[in-house]
Amino acid sequence: MSQDIPYKIYLKENEIPDKWYNVRADMKNKPAPLLNPGTHEPLKLEELEPIFCTELAKQELDDTTPYFDIPAEIQSFYKMYRPSPVVRAYCLEKALGTPAHIYYKFEGNNTSGSHKLNSAIAQAYYAKQQGLKGVTTETGAGQWGTALSMACAYFGIDCKVFMVKVSYEQKPFRREVMRTYGASITPSPSMETDIGRKINEEFPGTTGSLGCAISEAVETAVKNPGYRYVLGSVLSQVLLHQSVIGLEAKAALDKYGIKPDIIIGCAGGGSNLGGLIAPFAGQMLRGEENYRIIAVEPASCPSLTRGKYIYDFCDTGKVTPLAKMYTLGSGYIPAPNHAGGLRYHGMSTVISQLYDDGYLEATTAKQTEVFEAATKFARTEGILPAPESSHAIKVAIDEAMKCKETGEEKNILFGLTGTGYFDLVAYKNYNDGTMENYLPTDEEIAASLAKCPQV
Amino acid sequence: MSQDIPYKIYLKENEIPDKWYNVRADMKNKPAPLLNPGTHEPLKLEELEPIFCTELAKQELDDTTPYFDIPAEIQSFYKMYRPSPVVRAYCLEKALGTPAHIYYKFEGNNTSGSHKLNSAIAQAYYAKQQGLKGVTTETGAGQWGTALSMACAYFGIDCKVFMVKVSYEQKPFRREVMRTYGASITPSPSMETDIGRKINEEFPGTTGSLGCAISEAVETAVKNPGYRYVLGSVLSQVLLHQSVIGLEAKAALDKYGIKPDIIIGCAGGGSNLGGLIAPFAGQMLRGEENYRIIAVEPASCPSLTRGKYIYDFCDTGKVTPLAKMYTLGSGYIPAPNHAGGLRYHGMSTVISQLYDDGYLEATTAKQTEVFEAATKFARTEGILPAPESSHAIKVAIDEAMKCKETGEEKNILFGLTGTGYFDLVAYKNYNDGTMENYLPTDEEIAASLAKCPQV
Repeated sequence: MSQDIPYKIYLKENEIPDKWYNVRADMKNKPAPLLNPGTHEPLKLEELEPIFCTELAKQELDDTTPYFDIPAEIQSFYKMYRPSPVVRAYCLEKALGTPAHIYYKFEGNNTSGSHKLNSAIAQAYYAKQQGLKGVTTETGAGQWGTALSMACAYFGIDCKVFMVKVSYEQKPFRREVMRTYGASITPSPSMETDIGRKINEEFPGTTGSLGCAISEAVETAVKNPGYRYVLGSVLSQVLLHQSVIGLEAKAALDKYGIKPDIIIGCAGGGSNLGGLIAPFAGQMLRGEENYRIIAVEPASCPSLTRGKYIYDFCDTGKVTPLAKMYTLGSGYIPAPNHAGGLRYHGMSTVISQLYDDGYLEATTAKQTEVFEAATKFARTEGILPAPESSHAIKVAIDEAMKCKETGEEKNILFGLTGTGYFDLVAYKNYNDGTMENYLPTDEEIAASLAKCPQV
Repeated sequence: MSQDIPYKIYLKENEIPDKWYNVRADMKNKPAPLLNPGTHEPLKLEELEPIFCTELAKQELDDTTPYFDIPAEIQSFYKMYRPSPVVRAYCLEKALGTPAHIYYKFEGNNTSGSHKLNSAIAQAYYAKQQGLKGVTTETGAGQWGTALSMACAYFGIDCKVFMVKVSYEQKPFRREVMRTYGASITPSPSMETDIGRKINEEFPGTTGSLGCAISEAVETAVKNPGYRYVLGSVLSQVLLHQSVIGLEAKAALDKYGIKPDIIIGCAGGGSNLGGLIAPFAGQMLRGEENYRIIAVEPASCPSLTRGKYIYDFCDTGKVTPLAKMYTLGSGYIPAPNHAGGLRYHGMSTVISQLYDDGYLEATTAKQTEVFEAATKFARTEGILPAPESSHAIKVAIDEAMKCKETGEEKNILFGLTGTGYFDLVAYKNYNDGTMENYLPTDEEIAASLAKCPQV
């Protein structure tokens, strides 16, 4: 066991990045623009402003500015839970008997339990700066809702969360954390919005969906003066804020002269993956360096690996702009899967374009394999990982085992996005041996894709 | 806001202590010895060995050796989650408008969610070294059981946890974490032990108690070759291991020339408080320095503030040795309180003697006040604290507000022992406004104390 590299590489507080990196600036093939779903024309700032905070809308549309200053207030907040460590997984390596060096960037050591806080605090800040009363959002698994509640409590603005009804009922503890931070949580579909009332009438007793919760949150933002809508993934502004993950990871590794051969991240909407790989992808785009980057999706929701690169709605309710992305079709209903944060039909436009241009690979993992890897990780490295993050663990272990066969001392870096403390129903299913793997058929995916808009 | 002192003071990995400090070595008035409950004679090593690992029994009896080397394997494990930071609570200070400087030593950033892991890994190590198959223990709130499960998984030894039946049923998620780490969890009272069967016969449908679970764990250890019993608090060996908290805290503060004026810790059995104050109390005992140390108990279980300093059983079932300690009587049933880790009738013999000799003060906090402080802390500092730790937060805030009145710039250090991620039923009660405060009457305490053994 090498003693030169510590178990945890921490940057100093004054080494936390003071700028976010916008990978789009270095892309020759820019992500395709968001389109107005009625006119199919590229969206303009003034069309986004009624829904999004103005500064965030500007960030969303800006694909040329390489760096954005991180405002001082956000830097202060970052100092409460950042820098997050790059951890050398000595104990996992030993258990695997691999010559590979495994590193993970751990984003779970904050009360939201995931990397979502990096963008939540930025979005709450710009809302506060604009003099808004509050923000609205939706949450499914609950990580984003929790992160946003914490951020809004910090800046003293109102936070209205529409929580998919089935999660509201099955995850009372997530709901309670948000309440403790002062957020108001409404089970969706609710009777508080037109769309909610309509859905409740049409489908009495429905337990809701993320698509419906998005529609309710957007309606509430638009109808209430002083409110805007915010989102925790998919958007390019979110990937911009999440670049803090990759910038810190790269700075920490650079301190010890470590170049990762393989970089692995789980991929749902792309917020973590996009953040982790940003500076590395930037080097590749500028022709300075080369890395093998692997996106890991759940086999039950394989947008990159089995979807199509076309224009589609970002939500099931078809109220959002159109985005060109790898998608399974906005009507695709992912089978039950405990990695709720990865159950999204599409993929960030940035990740989609980088994938299409060959800068990254994609693979899938089955749920039971993921929890097998999660359990091995928990027992050796001591951290109970989130189901989402465990997709990356699974592939990191696979790659480390390949090194065992070949004898290669590769450096593997993966993103450990969060902890599984609120996912113990999933662990119970796995421990009880009752967890199942769902795989969509080709026909299912084709049927869903057939309903995408013709652009 | 001073920019000289960072938000988080981290030691370097090679600055993690390599020795535990045994505060008893510096005490002129040693804690009274444990007594054999039959003969009332001081317990000898050979009497402890059938129950405890031999090295741990030696540590328990040793009140003269000031430092114990931390074995290399334990140091390696410590590096996975230590050093833990000393955090400057800039945001809380700002919210309070106090000139005081508030620091907290945060022990919650590991999957067990508390400081318990510091001693669990030591106890599992010595069991492994002795060639044992496994260990038995009891758990109530679940922090200790989780920590021990993690430690046993790391060293590959068996872990049998007797979990108070009411917790087993009400805290399925705690149970599931332990299962994920490979521990076997038995609801207590069970049908697997003589004492369990007896209690189940006498009190059909009982939901159990910590006292009963201790008895079952001890019986199982004694009857199964290759097993020993381990305990997460109260014992002097536990305080020895937990000294790593105080040693790290002091080293971190020393780096910036900070001398704490007030040191605050929550007090149940004394494991956290004893660990946090160890090196500071050592300086006081040697006449080198002076600090104001405050132990905070729940008002519903006030052993230091309203108990008596006498010999008593360590458990409700009266199967353990007698310890001289501040106690409410081993038959005292603390009223329901969400800080399960503080619901213990007695107090570490070390803390008891230091208190009796005037080295520390003690005070109590009511449950609703504690959660009010917890919520304020969560919203400003971003961490959802454990109910136990929040007792210390409450008094730290009180002291900071006194500084606001007097204008004094005192340095306040408190122990943030853990996170509240598994305590959200408690937060829900508080958020719903249904939380109650229970205060024992003088008559209740007197009646319980009257049943203590005459030594």
